[in-house]
Amino acid sequence: MLVVGESINSTIRRVGEAINNRDAAFIAELAREQVAAGAAMLDVNAGVADGDEAENLLWAIRTVQEAVDVPLVIDSTAPKAVEAALEVHRGRPVLNSISGEVRKLQSLLPLVAESGCGVILLCLDDRGVPKTAAERCAVAQSLVEQAVSANVALEDLYIDPLVLTVGSDWQAARVALEALHLIRAALPQVRTIAGVSNVSFGMPQRSLLNRTFLAMAVAFGLDTVMVNVRDKALTATLWAANALAGSDTYCSDYLDAYHEGKLTV
Amino acid sequence: MLVVGESINSTIRRVGEAINNRDAAFIAELAREQVAAGAAMLDVNAGVADGDEAENLLWAIRTVQEAVDVPLVIDSTAPKAVEAALEVHRGRPVLNSISGEVRKLQSLLPLVAESGCGVILLCLDDRGVPKTAAERCAVAQSLVEQAVSANVALEDLYIDPLVLTVGSDWQAARVALEALHLIRAALPQVRTIAGVSNVSFGMPQRSLLNRTFLAMAVAFGLDTVMVNVRDKALTATLWAANALAGSDTYCSDYLDAYHEGKLTV
Repeated sequence: MLVVGESINSTIRRVGEAINNRDAAFIAELAREQVAAGAAMLDVNAGVADGDEAENLLWAIRTVQEAVDVPLVIDSTAPKAVEAALEVHRGRPVLNSISGEVRKLQSLLPLVAESGCGVILLCLDDRGVPKTAAERCAVAQSLVEQAVSANVALEDLYIDPLVLTVGSDWQAARVALEALHLIRAALPQVRTIAGVSNVSFGMPQRSLLNRTFLAMAVAFGLDTVMVNVRDKALTATLWAANALAGSDTYCSDYLDAYHEGKLTV
Repeated sequence: MLVVGESINSTIRRVGEAINNRDAAFIAELAREQVAAGAAMLDVNAGVADGDEAENLLWAIRTVQEAVDVPLVIDSTAPKAVEAALEVHRGRPVLNSISGEVRKLQSLLPLVAESGCGVILLCLDDRGVPKTAAERCAVAQSLVEQAVSANVALEDLYIDPLVLTVGSDWQAARVALEALHLIRAALPQVRTIAGVSNVSFGMPQRSLLNRTFLAMAVAFGLDTVMVNVRDKALTATLWAANALAGSDTYCSDYLDAYHEGKLTV
């Protein structure tokens, strides 16, 4: 299980402000806190701060990489910002994300292949978000084919089945889980990733929904999670889910987490 | 989702003592508490109390049915106790349980057919507990065939895939989930049931493992749960799991539970 910390995201008001104000201490602390809580990678999004996104993103990447020694997930929809970010990032980042929209594929896939970074592939295309799990899996297969044709290695691909909120479609979580299941079977060599907290947008008791969905998604084969690692109830669920999914040999990670006091919420 | 309260079980020391001492107030209160917490049925087990099991079971059933108006799950391995219990129970109980062991099938299946009660079928036979999910599903199919041949209605069957503890086999939960998935697909007309708390026997932070496994099992199609309904974190997870599994239209049960304060742990 690969855990990505989701918190350095400019859509969160205090983070956006810290990027605007070049508050390096705040961003560095947020990075350290997430790595201490178990994040092996950190998502960095500077998309809704003031001014030039590329400049903001480069500043954020440099600030985070001065504070912690983990690879980053570069979270931007602006090709110029992405290009600049891939140059400044130390080590191998993951690009978040490319969908099956032709324009995005054509502008970003060559960049990914050239830089040798990983990439998150979203199961949507120019027709929008597919309604059924089977359609999402078909988009995933097409995206993987195109990425491989563009010389991106299979092990650098992270498929995101798209998790939408049950607040606007009460079948949304079930469809995402089924898509995950189909993708896991059809594309066993690629990783699967999901932004778990999307599932609860607009709903009450979000943390409860997020950790419950996380448990389900791990059981259906999710191997990379983008989560709020500072949510202790959620990370405790993650340890438990790994043990129950049969991917924690002799439950030793779970028992270690228990002895380190990480399971007490 | 059908929720069975598991707590009137003589293997729990205080419950066994209450049965020995004919402490009706204690048993009645335990029954009322579970129904108030959302149990639609209550398991009643008097198997490890002192004296005659049939007498103990009859006393417990009468005591519970004087306190609450829900059907019971009669939990006994003694054919004589079962026979007496089926006679004294008001309404239609569920028998917990029959396995594929020939002797048990032959002694209990005719009783079930005659009384018209429901029955939990355990996925094990004279060869023991099957190791693989496919073998458990095959046992389930054979049990269902035999029950139907004995004139038990399909809708009265509850298949238990057998949940063993990850404390002694770290693949145990995964195998149970896979079995559930196969059984759900092979036998869509029968109900599935699981005793969730078995999964954590001998492990630390049992409640965390139980509710995490519950979320997974609901996603894999579990429709009847036998749980400790007085564990608020677990019942909150159950509401969330139903909403996420797409079986709660417009998430209205989840939202009602929220407004009734049932989701705050």
